[in-house]
Amino acid sequence: MTKIVNDPEEFPKDSLEGFTEIYSEYVQPVHGGVVRTAASPESEVALVVGGGSGHYPAFAGWVGPGIAHGSVCGNIFASPSASQARSVIRAADNGAGTLMMFGNYAGDVLHFGQAAEQLRAEGYDIRIVEITDDIASDSPQNHLQRRGIAGDFPVVKVVGAAAAEGHSIDEVEAVARHVNDKTRSLGVAFSGCTLPGSTEPLFTVEEGTFGLGLGIHGEPGIATEKLGTADDLAELLVSKILEEEPPRGEDGYDGRVAVLVNGLGATKYEELFLLYSRISKLLRKAGLEIIRPVVDEQVTSLDMAGVSLTLTFLDEDLERYWLAAADTPAFRSGSVENSGATRREVTAETEEAASAGAPESAEQAKKIAVILEALEKTTRDAEHDLGKMDSVAGDGDHGQGMVLGSTAAAESARQSVAAGAGSKTLLARAGAAWSEGAGGTAGALWGGALARVGNGLSDGEAVDDAAIIAAVVGGTKAIEEMGGAVVGDKTMVDATVPFADALEGAGDKPLAEAWDEAATAAENAAADTASFAAKKGRARTHGGKSVGTPDPGAISFSMLMRTVADQLATK
Amino acid sequence: MTKIVNDPEEFPKDSLEGFTEIYSEYVQPVHGGVVRTAASPESEVALVVGGGSGHYPAFAGWVGPGIAHGSVCGNIFASPSASQARSVIRAADNGAGTLMMFGNYAGDVLHFGQAAEQLRAEGYDIRIVEITDDIASDSPQNHLQRRGIAGDFPVVKVVGAAAAEGHSIDEVEAVARHVNDKTRSLGVAFSGCTLPGSTEPLFTVEEGTFGLGLGIHGEPGIATEKLGTADDLAELLVSKILEEEPPRGEDGYDGRVAVLVNGLGATKYEELFLLYSRISKLLRKAGLEIIRPVVDEQVTSLDMAGVSLTLTFLDEDLERYWLAAADTPAFRSGSVENSGATRREVTAETEEAASAGAPESAEQAKKIAVILEALEKTTRDAEHDLGKMDSVAGDGDHGQGMVLGSTAAAESARQSVAAGAGSKTLLARAGAAWSEGAGGTAGALWGGALARVGNGLSDGEAVDDAAIIAAVVGGTKAIEEMGGAVVGDKTMVDATVPFADALEGAGDKPLAEAWDEAATAAENAAADTASFAAKKGRARTHGGKSVGTPDPGAISFSMLMRTVADQLATK
Repeated sequence: MTKIVNDPEEFPKDSLEGFTEIYSEYVQPVHGGVVRTAASPESEVALVVGGGSGHYPAFAGWVGPGIAHGSVCGNIFASPSASQARSVIRAADNGAGTLMMFGNYAGDVLHFGQAAEQLRAEGYDIRIVEITDDIASDSPQNHLQRRGIAGDFPVVKVVGAAAAEGHSIDEVEAVARHVNDKTRSLGVAFSGCTLPGSTEPLFTVEEGTFGLGLGIHGEPGIATEKLGTADDLAELLVSKILEEEPPRGEDGYDGRVAVLVNGLGATKYEELFLLYSRISKLLRKAGLEIIRPVVDEQVTSLDMAGVSLTLTFLDEDLERYWLAAADTPAFRSGSVENSGATRREVTAETEEAASAGAPESAEQAKKIAVILEALEKTTRDAEHDLGKMDSVAGDGDHGQGMVLGSTAAAESARQSVAAGAGSKTLLARAGAAWSEGAGGTAGALWGGALARVGNGLSDGEAVDDAAIIAAVVGGTKAIEEMGGAVVGDKTMVDATVPFADALEGAGDKPLAEAWDEAATAAENAAADTASFAAKKGRARTHGGKSVGTPDPGAISFSMLMRTVADQLATK
Repeated sequence: MTKIVNDPEEFPKDSLEGFTEIYSEYVQPVHGGVVRTAASPESEVALVVGGGSGHYPAFAGWVGPGIAHGSVCGNIFASPSASQARSVIRAADNGAGTLMMFGNYAGDVLHFGQAAEQLRAEGYDIRIVEITDDIASDSPQNHLQRRGIAGDFPVVKVVGAAAAEGHSIDEVEAVARHVNDKTRSLGVAFSGCTLPGSTEPLFTVEEGTFGLGLGIHGEPGIATEKLGTADDLAELLVSKILEEEPPRGEDGYDGRVAVLVNGLGATKYEELFLLYSRISKLLRKAGLEIIRPVVDEQVTSLDMAGVSLTLTFLDEDLERYWLAAADTPAFRSGSVENSGATRREVTAETEEAASAGAPESAEQAKKIAVILEALEKTTRDAEHDLGKMDSVAGDGDHGQGMVLGSTAAAESARQSVAAGAGSKTLLARAGAAWSEGAGGTAGALWGGALARVGNGLSDGEAVDDAAIIAAVVGGTKAIEEMGGAVVGDKTMVDATVPFADALEGAGDKPLAEAWDEAATAAENAAADTASFAAKKGRARTHGGKSVGTPDPGAISFSMLMRTVADQLATK
């Protein structure tokens, strides 16, 4: 359980502050994360990694000569926002293109994807390769749909070495796809972890059992098994992973493997060493040769107890990259030429103040700001329940994410009101703030939707109820398109679509009445999500959903739409 | 809780096997621990560290160029035996003398001290400096009586650098005393740890509180306090340690400090970074300059949750040693000249088989072997209860230590019987095996006592009851002398003295009857230890003793004397 906390919402920021101070020789802070302190050659492809915090050394611990050039640092277990990713990439790019790598989770895919699109429009050459090493999360045929766990380390280490060798962005991207294709992990969890500020664990594992393939945020695994000896565990991990060993003698693979035995946090070194001594015997028995084993904590989940085994099936190039020198806060190997004499100069991202809108629009903007404050209050009241709901099938961060997003949006709205901004600007900024503050999938969708609603308004005049309804319907429908989910996937879309349909079909009813009906439709639909059967286990939605619990995203959406209805009714 | 285990008794050995395999470039196994793989210069003073296992990286993780030359590796939380220490020192010594360093605990002091005496008799120049950084364990005036915790790391790091600079054994010893004198730690515990194979934690910390100064094996601390914010914790640790800051401007100290923020196992990196960001602000506010902070896990206690702060008040020499290059499994810094091309050759220690004694003595030896097997059975039955009793005031390893010791002694006795050995040889070997198998203070005392009893017997003839009684009285009285404790200290001596007195005073009663009376005296005395008041808090006896629980060493002694009485009665 996390014990050293000031304000839980500030935990990732506070922690990153300490990290950048301790390792100032390696990293310097930028908006959204860190980049190397030392300058890199201009011709060097930049490797930018990232994801939620709470997994140290992943990802910021790998920034330094020989591995990554920058790391985007999200909130605990929540993907960073697109604006964070943009900022880190701008500071890390050496003019030769940037490869972004992260574990394959919905929020990361969404935010990093948005950032890449925006930066490409600015002329950057941005590539993305998702890491998909966890064999528990999908079938061998769907290797590229799996989620990323401790395999993040060998994959990123290898790609960083390829970048350091001076290869082009095309070549580095090819290495990244290749090494991800040759890397397999399987993990077990012995106990859950507790988020900063929370008094209950995110999930639990029954005493005397372990969760086979349980995700690093508590996502469902393959099975709950009875805890046996270390020998049993070694046998299980090795045999499952070797089911996916590529044929020896083909494509340069002849049985040489990189090995990572990774502790999740509370499973300590002595246990990892013991397990490795068993794993190495089994690998040798299978005719494999171990190349530089790493037995350590490289991808943790706060104080979760558990362990994973990762194998990378090497060819000549991959072996050279795996063994190449590296010098980062959390992993050092060999001797790296120190270019630290030249400091990399980075400029802080600044935000312009909002400009004033027409008085009529500014008046409407004030009312919107009041509604956003009400939304913040609702999410704070519901935080605990939403988190619990989310921990059944997701990573338990939904409650906190909604609080962070709505708080940032309300704060942004207050600033816009103070600047006399119009309603369009206020909502565009509030949307960006929500996305930035919350991170995660839901943060991206809420932020995008708010901005889209703003697009339907105007800074030059007040708009009427019909225009408001059209704007809200447009923003709400955009969620379906942005997230790629459809009704029945057990996501917030199950509630947003009925809401938008009801609002659109309200004809010329007054806004308050129309909204009340639409909110009721959303509430009914959200409650219905509890009875949906488990859908296909898609890695991008954190594995299969469980039956019997409503989708927290649909529930929170319906709650906030009810809050808006209440606000409109009191006017 | 430790989850990855085969046979709990083999846990430290199994774990060390994995460690030496993973880090074979750094360390090679020898009897009792590890030494560097690479050869060292002949003129280099050897630094041998050690202690119980369960604290990785302490101590084996620090073996390599720039720090230690060897590490003695005991059982979990139990000091290694003297024979283990001898073996590692013989393999590590470069001909220029060896400095042994370890945290100041009774078992370590006893075993390493015995090893040093024996090796000095062989012509080795052996020095010992105990590490005493934990300000919670004794007053500032008694700094050298305090126990050693995370300060082990900066102290050992500094001394290793002095040895690597090529200083003489006198100079290196002086550096060791100096840096220990300038190093202060204070730790807090949030939750206990669980020994391998155990289902209950060694100790617990009440939810919402922390143990201030609680030892790394659960030894009593200063107080139980309510858990506040990270700011509160930083303030507490910094202010308490700075109470012992030496005057600035004297002895070369001008406010420059080495800083270690150490996690005990389940308190993870993000929390340590956050705490450091607060600590560094407070240190700067106090006018101090931080020299290369280390914020990491360097001295753990299995999966215990907790953290400690260590400051070393630097002068010019200490700062140079602190910053010097090092290359070990758990700590790397700068660039070390690799002498790995030359492998250090070590020879395995071998034990001669026992030679046969006279048939009459061998007959008596067989009976002793049967008694030793009965002792093993008794300790196995009592293991859990003894461990629980020990966890109140000690480190909870007494039950396991007694099982390991008696098992090794019984096995050794079986081998002696098979070789036809006489009773003197059988007991001498059984004593050495007990000490070796158990480690810890109790192991040293039991082993020494058995050997001493053997000294009173003969391999050439059977001895009569009077001679047996004299030998047993002599062996039992030796415990007082070896351990340095007296009656009333709440140690096993509280039971051994009444036992020896009763046996000695039995006149010419038959052996079985005399032993029965002496065993009863031991039982009464052991029970009485529960009512002793807390004695002075001596670091060497793991801090102050608590009232109300009998001393586990006295209890186990009386139990085993009862077992012997039962055996004698059935004959």
